[in-house]
Amino acid sequence: MDIVILGSGNVATHLGKALVHAGNNILQVWSRQGVNAEELAHRLNARSTDRLDQVDLNADVYIIAVVDDAISDLITQLKHIKGNLNGMLVHTSGSTSMDVFGGRFDKVGVFYPLQTFSKSKEVDFQAIPILLEVSNSSQLDLLKNLASSISNRVEVVTSAQRKSLHIAAVFACNYTNFLYAIAQQLLEEHDLDFGLIRPLIKETADKAQLHAPKDVQTGPAIRKDMSIVRDHIKFLEYKKDWQEIYKLLSEELIKISTQK
Amino acid sequence: MDIVILGSGNVATHLGKALVHAGNNILQVWSRQGVNAEELAHRLNARSTDRLDQVDLNADVYIIAVVDDAISDLITQLKHIKGNLNGMLVHTSGSTSMDVFGGRFDKVGVFYPLQTFSKSKEVDFQAIPILLEVSNSSQLDLLKNLASSISNRVEVVTSAQRKSLHIAAVFACNYTNFLYAIAQQLLEEHDLDFGLIRPLIKETADKAQLHAPKDVQTGPAIRKDMSIVRDHIKFLEYKKDWQEIYKLLSEELIKISTQK
Repeated sequence: MDIVILGSGNVATHLGKALVHAGNNILQVWSRQGVNAEELAHRLNARSTDRLDQVDLNADVYIIAVVDDAISDLITQLKHIKGNLNGMLVHTSGSTSMDVFGGRFDKVGVFYPLQTFSKSKEVDFQAIPILLEVSNSSQLDLLKNLASSISNRVEVVTSAQRKSLHIAAVFACNYTNFLYAIAQQLLEEHDLDFGLIRPLIKETADKAQLHAPKDVQTGPAIRKDMSIVRDHIKFLEYKKDWQEIYKLLSEELIKISTQK
Repeated sequence: MDIVILGSGNVATHLGKALVHAGNNILQVWSRQGVNAEELAHRLNARSTDRLDQVDLNADVYIIAVVDDAISDLITQLKHIKGNLNGMLVHTSGSTSMDVFGGRFDKVGVFYPLQTFSKSKEVDFQAIPILLEVSNSSQLDLLKNLASSISNRVEVVTSAQRKSLHIAAVFACNYTNFLYAIAQQLLEEHDLDFGLIRPLIKETADKAQLHAPKDVQTGPAIRKDMSIVRDHIKFLEYKKDWQEIYKLLSEELIKISTQK
């Protein structure tokens, strides 16, 4: 398929590479920052532009891969270019509604890859679920074909389901990483190497690949080992932010263990 | 070395198996529940007892592997048995002080394997850090030898360091698993499979093996995408417990992103 990518960040980069690898043709990369557009276009063997009025009108699919806050503005600007986009316009956001497209475009949808992308680390796109949504089911085949070209797990979801997936991902990925960061800082403040708990982090994630997390919950709070919980909270007195997080999460776990 | 294990839970089981595998001899397993002692003793080719006054007095090391709340009681009872334990008495707890041993025993220490153990999953003990503490440095060699027989990463730490490790492990393992559990329930309530975010969980933990978590933090809160954060909090209105956790963690991340 012929594709135009609007954006040049981590999602645009990883998605672009996977699409090229699967045999799709990236016609063009647009970015507000011309130099970023050029750099990604070069890697994808595509043309580049920093002007929306020069976007190629003849792609099959236009993929918006900019930060969530910028999607609405970008679409508004696309509405004012001369000529019509002939292809389907999709965004890649977990929590942006289909309403963001307004009335101008006939063929719109969502193409949401459920993964965390960073510049420095390659990802295996085949294992990444892609969640699709379309306003008109006649356009579903096109999007399914595109998604299936790069991923083994393609599903059609509603807006509410997509949002719940995004929130679940925030808990299981963003907030989890934040807890790792707290652990690292806590260790370093006590002259200990973060490497000491890396095996634990790996084991915890591995366990969740095979089990329901609630069935393998461990730790002082779930077994209501209150002397330890209180002792930890006291230890964290010097760092109120962490103490508050420890308190809230332990209270929730104690509540769950009591309901059992 | 000749070892007596006091306890029959997950730590006792995994540690016992690793010690046998490394060529140590488990003399005896004690547990308050005789049937549990028997079962583990059978797997470790050891004798079993449910009576502390029948504990073998001639082991090199006695390993206490019971829940934290039960350690102090067990030690008090050990103080009242006839005869002296000839070997070294250690506990395996992250957050229990050396003071728990009181004055009766000459040779005491801590042998803390930093990992989460569950019945259903084998672990590679070689990769598990073992943190040691002794009251008298002349006893350190014995404990180091024992630890090195099963792990590649043996370190001597202070009580405060050991506690900070335990708290870091609570954040990075117990609380992380709790966030996974929230994600699972959230998905299931919206008719979605937890399998959809398993790749994300794996990727997040993999990233932490190579990077400092704070350097790879992603998500709406760290990029101050406030419309998404507010939208998620609104979505969680139906589940106040999760909403409160989402709020607190997003506030903390926003605070960090503002300090940068």
